[in-house]
Amino acid sequence: MNLADKITLCEVGPRDGLQNEARLFSAEEKVELINQMMEAGFKVIEVGSFVSPKAVPQMANTDEVFRALKPPADVELRALIANARGVDRAVECGCRKVKLNVSASKAHNLANLNRTPEESVAGFKECVDKAAANGIAVSGSISMAFGSPWDREIPIQDVKDIVNAYLNVGVTEISLSDASGMAYPSQVYNMCTEMMREFPQVEWWLHFHNTRGLGVANIVAGMEAGVRNFDTSFAGVGGCPFVPGAAGNVSTEDVVHMCDEMGVKTGIDLDKAMEISRRVAELVGHPTDSYLLRAGKSKDLIRELPKGQLKNQVKAK
Amino acid sequence: MNLADKITLCEVGPRDGLQNEARLFSAEEKVELINQMMEAGFKVIEVGSFVSPKAVPQMANTDEVFRALKPPADVELRALIANARGVDRAVECGCRKVKLNVSASKAHNLANLNRTPEESVAGFKECVDKAAANGIAVSGSISMAFGSPWDREIPIQDVKDIVNAYLNVGVTEISLSDASGMAYPSQVYNMCTEMMREFPQVEWWLHFHNTRGLGVANIVAGMEAGVRNFDTSFAGVGGCPFVPGAAGNVSTEDVVHMCDEMGVKTGIDLDKAMEISRRVAELVGHPTDSYLLRAGKSKDLIRELPKGQLKNQVKAK
Repeated sequence: MNLADKITLCEVGPRDGLQNEARLFSAEEKVELINQMMEAGFKVIEVGSFVSPKAVPQMANTDEVFRALKPPADVELRALIANARGVDRAVECGCRKVKLNVSASKAHNLANLNRTPEESVAGFKECVDKAAANGIAVSGSISMAFGSPWDREIPIQDVKDIVNAYLNVGVTEISLSDASGMAYPSQVYNMCTEMMREFPQVEWWLHFHNTRGLGVANIVAGMEAGVRNFDTSFAGVGGCPFVPGAAGNVSTEDVVHMCDEMGVKTGIDLDKAMEISRRVAELVGHPTDSYLLRAGKSKDLIRELPKGQLKNQVKAK
Repeated sequence: MNLADKITLCEVGPRDGLQNEARLFSAEEKVELINQMMEAGFKVIEVGSFVSPKAVPQMANTDEVFRALKPPADVELRALIANARGVDRAVECGCRKVKLNVSASKAHNLANLNRTPEESVAGFKECVDKAAANGIAVSGSISMAFGSPWDREIPIQDVKDIVNAYLNVGVTEISLSDASGMAYPSQVYNMCTEMMREFPQVEWWLHFHNTRGLGVANIVAGMEAGVRNFDTSFAGVGGCPFVPGAAGNVSTEDVVHMCDEMGVKTGIDLDKAMEISRRVAELVGHPTDSYLLRAGKSKDLIRELPKGQLKNQVKAK
């Protein structure tokens, strides 16, 4: 099985996880959690988004959170933005990395925004230039890359067209995202293999939701294809915009645990990550989709042997 | 990605699922569910077990259930047994296939039963011979093959010794089972590859619990290694004997859905399987670990396009 020696996880819980929660987290709570994450070994964290506070009140305090954080040089704190105003806010609060997103659904983009996804990405040029002028790095995301509720299947050529549009505006770090929870392992493997072959200059990320229980299998498939960067969310919080009550992003601790077992390095301290996730589960106040929080680590399952046949325990050593 | 054209699923919900439930299912309820399964296309179903009704009251009516079922020739209804008395009960009620099980933990077998796993399997000879004399097929299971709470890691040589012991008593259909929920994808791939290479005469099965969220990824890893037979449980019911409140067996509908998406044939009608699982979830009376029951099929996610830019919807076609 062709796996990785080492992968990078981006903790997207503070953004994609918490934006799906009814409870609004205070800036202090977020800062405390993110500081704990940095201590647990996370090197990439999606802190929040610079979008309309009316549309996403859960992210209204993102600027405040950034101002309070003092990341070391090797930690990347990123924020999702929708337009150039997002870059302005990033500049103002000291955020050094922003992420843009476009949906891969041509039909939905045309019906909703009157432009194709490539046209939307071409329109990101202003953001990218403004970010560059301010020393802020930019990555791009393609949501619904593995299927959309409006098209069902997205032709791989459509995704390639969007990648080219990103490259045209100077974005070379690109995330393929499955916000609709429709991705499946063979598709992930094939799409990633093809994308990595055609665009070797791109730094790829994968972003899976566990909507239909395939998130972890999709990560393994992506790893087999050669991708080394994956988004996960503490305690598995998050959701699916199309399916009320669906499971959220793949749980960080479930993925770190699997990687620990497989000898794939993440640099993350699992015990500390689980502590953070336990705290998040407590704060959101409802059960979340984390297996590790329910079952604990395999390593912790060790039980005493029954005492009935003590002499045999020596024989078994 | 080296996947299968076609796999066989054994529905173990009536046995491994329901034996973990507080609610006792009546023989009528079980018969109705199993008849629906046969109609949904399941060709292998684990109906129950012939063990002590005091130890496992949920399975006390297994004989009655078998007597009421009239499976077509191409459907295999199997039961778990622990000893020769189980074969007697199988003969009496018309069960045509039994499954024996041994734990792979040498230390636990010695401490608990004063014999090694191979010695236990050698002791199955009486069952196998009695079954053969009555035209009943026998399969063997090795629980804790991927790790045990007493040993943590099980040396692969120990598992091979048990396989040889099964072969010595004439059992060539063998299931590697992860009742402790400790298996992980690279381990599954490596163990299955090695086992299939060394024992090409064996018909292999895999049995995963989703205790730590890796059940589906483990099935994909097993498929990549060449295994074609997997146990799953309706609605994901079941549990882990060592972790109260843990997730159960991998959910049948989640696996069938993934296979449908990947073009791997199971022969099972997903809509009918989901109907059965919905009924099971209703009867057990608590939420179960089924993603499909929460989110529905990807195919059913199709949404209407927004009406804002109608002319563009034509352009998008």
